Amino acid sequence: MAASSHRFQAPKGTRDFYPPEMAVRRHLESIWREVSINHGFDEIEGPTFEHLDLYTVKSGPGIVSELFSFRREGGDVDYALRPEFTPTLARMYAARAHTLPSPTKWFCIENNFRAERPQRGRLREFFQWNVDVIGDDSPRADAEVIAVAIGVLERMGLTAADVRIKLSHRESVSHLLSDFGLPEDRHAAAFDLLDRRDKLDPDIYEAKADHLGFTEDMRERFQRFTQRSISRADLHDIAVETHVDPGRFEKMAHVADQLEMIGKGDWIEFDLGIVRGLAYYTGTVFEIHEASGNERAIAGGGRYDRLIELFGGPPTPAVGFAMGDVVIRLVLEDKGLLADAETYLPRPDVFLITAKQEHDAAAATLLANLRRDGFHVRHTYRSTRNVGKLLGEANKTRARFAVILGDEMSDGRVALKNLEAGEQRDVALDRLTRALREALDR
Amino acid sequence: MAASSHRFQAPKGTRDFYPPEMAVRRHLESIWREVSINHGFDEIEGPTFEHLDLYTVKSGPGIVSELFSFRREGGDVDYALRPEFTPTLARMYAARAHTLPSPTKWFCIENNFRAERPQRGRLREFFQWNVDVIGDDSPRADAEVIAVAIGVLERMGLTAADVRIKLSHRESVSHLLSDFGLPEDRHAAAFDLLDRRDKLDPDIYEAKADHLGFTEDMRERFQRFTQRSISRADLHDIAVETHVDPGRFEKMAHVADQLEMIGKGDWIEFDLGIVRGLAYYTGTVFEIHEASGNERAIAGGGRYDRLIELFGGPPTPAVGFAMGDVVIRLVLEDKGLLADAETYLPRPDVFLITAKQEHDAAAATLLANLRRDGFHVRHTYRSTRNVGKLLGEANKTRARFAVILGDEMSDGRVALKNLEAGEQRDVALDRLTRALREALDR
Repeated sequence: MAASSHRFQAPKGTRDFYPPEMAVRRHLESIWREVSINHGFDEIEGPTFEHLDLYTVKSGPGIVSELFSFRREGGDVDYALRPEFTPTLARMYAARAHTLPSPTKWFCIENNFRAERPQRGRLREFFQWNVDVIGDDSPRADAEVIAVAIGVLERMGLTAADVRIKLSHRESVSHLLSDFGLPEDRHAAAFDLLDRRDKLDPDIYEAKADHLGFTEDMRERFQRFTQRSISRADLHDIAVETHVDPGRFEKMAHVADQLEMIGKGDWIEFDLGIVRGLAYYTGTVFEIHEASGNERAIAGGGRYDRLIELFGGPPTPAVGFAMGDVVIRLVLEDKGLLADAETYLPRPDVFLITAKQEHDAAAATLLANLRRDGFHVRHTYRSTRNVGKLLGEANKTRARFAVILGDEMSDGRVALKNLEAGEQRDVALDRLTRALREALDR
Repeated sequence: MAASSHRFQAPKGTRDFYPPEMAVRRHLESIWREVSINHGFDEIEGPTFEHLDLYTVKSGPGIVSELFSFRREGGDVDYALRPEFTPTLARMYAARAHTLPSPTKWFCIENNFRAERPQRGRLREFFQWNVDVIGDDSPRADAEVIAVAIGVLERMGLTAADVRIKLSHRESVSHLLSDFGLPEDRHAAAFDLLDRRDKLDPDIYEAKADHLGFTEDMRERFQRFTQRSISRADLHDIAVETHVDPGRFEKMAHVADQLEMIGKGDWIEFDLGIVRGLAYYTGTVFEIHEASGNERAIAGGGRYDRLIELFGGPPTPAVGFAMGDVVIRLVLEDKGLLADAETYLPRPDVFLITAKQEHDAAAATLLANLRRDGFHVRHTYRSTRNVGKLLGEANKTRARFAVILGDEMSDGRVALKNLEAGEQRDVALDRLTRALREALDR
């Protein structure tokens, strides 16, 4: 029976997070959160599902097959699990545009859902970190969100040699396509196709391109401009060659200028092959890739200056990006930048050992009191009173201290053992909290 | 058009978390997390949706109308958004039962979904904190999960006078029902009905009870046993009156004994009216209520010793509970135990002020470096250079320090102002990180 073979497993493309896997997830999330906050971003969140037409209004009905959509039994409203966060963010901003600060700087750590075939780096449920600056149309805002991404990559141990931030600009690529002779009303479709060109079968790519009027000659010229990352001088030359005012063509250079000013220029390269598939991007677009190019993009984003208006808000410039949890974890693992999952589990402050049964009641009270005082305290569930064995169990939990209730209890004292240094001393029971605070530097 | 009237709003029964609301949510979650960890629980998580039959196997097909269920377009597998976490937990435990520690102590903070009419204290998407001890059938395990709940309530500022933990036992209530003459095969249905008796229209309750064979006489006797919380002596008397070995009837007292031993007995009362609706409970059941009884339950749980076996694992005793975010927040608000939402927003360490345009490049670099060094740094996005106005903006962000780049920059120094104490001194630029670490006690 199909039902019984799968029902006790996680659905395909989703994950069970047992404690070690969960600890790694929390480790990545805490870096995302802390770096976002340090950069002055405020955390938000929205519903896990939205009205289906929040997605179709922007992307058309074609997106429905990529979504998990549903209705309430007997209801008449269509919902969909969120495939990305930007529509929710645009809706939330639009609803309060007139009372929010300018710029509004938001981040969000949330889960997204895609009804597609799971593959390496791509799951049906995954976690994503979103960072957005809303209400600032200057290159400074573009650079600010990229700087947060760099902040996270640095905190994870990555360097500009490991990871490349590939910067492009929708208007620049559009100028190229116009110069090739592709009418402007086909550019959005061309962006979508070009974004997928490395993932499509070459024959299918060619057929779709021909159908679009993106001819073999255009494809070859595009290939020539995008076969390698390019310099500022190249940008200027391309502008001249394609008969565009170089000033208009070099907007992405202004973003790079801002990042150079703060010493992050070495993370950036220009790559006109980056177009991003989503219809809503209007200006700067960028992707972050592992330097070898072997994995999917670690992150991607760009400027979407017309989206908030589309969702009922005032005309508002905005720029942002998202980084999923799946690819960054593969990259960190490949580079040896993740320790054994167990090391991310919270370390106990104290392992409590009751050497004699007569102290069981006192131990239970002490346990409760230490936890109330904010200490992470563990103890054995085995029946042994063998202190040596119990110290072994304490070490396995990676506890920092052992507190032993033994003979010293007759004087109202317990043994406090530093499990790293191996030192042991007696402490009066009523001074134990203070002694632990000092020892743990709290 | 129905579509355009709702599409830019959050779906009914879901919430948008703007920064202040999100900060309150994170405040509650951080208490849940920290107290769980201090009590030696490991964090886990599972998929947001499961195979639909994970829920029907336990609760029957009747549950489907309470779920949001869906299929992938063109797929043949039914999924449902999780209405609770326990089936996922039981599935996860069953899958690795032979390698997990005994007992296994897990907690989880996750979102749940219910396809029902939203009302006060009950939403379509809400957050829930789950705590479970798996593999220990002693009253100590029951007491341990209740102790964690008390730990959280205490950390939130609640006392035993604000909140009552109502303890009952499925076997005890079952003995009562048998003594009334209700056949045992109707007890599960009776538990489900009795759990909802205060929420149902009295006529509907009576009709359903009559249909079940839970007669008016039985209802009156049940009412008499459950009209008030009862003492240990009452428990004994009831056992004698209903011809049951008092030892078998007093299992819930053994749980209370454990809590009394650690000084938490005053939180507990016995209440045979607590039965819990879910079919899987087998022993201890409990609910936490605000003392006035005006709100829905703050938390509820109990022992489910047969569920893991049902989900393909070995026979394994287990006990746990869940606390949602909605009711506890209402209770804390009612009691004045939540401060203004804004006070939960992360406080900036530094507000950076650039008094002269000539220092803009240096300010941008300093900003990036301080953030890289782990400080939460904000600055203005306005064009003013008026230090007085900017100090006003700094105070509005609740920053602890202002760093001012002004005339002192000619000597490579900046002004460091403690915004709480009002004191200001000069610090060499290359010693600023150290000075801030000391001042912030990091």
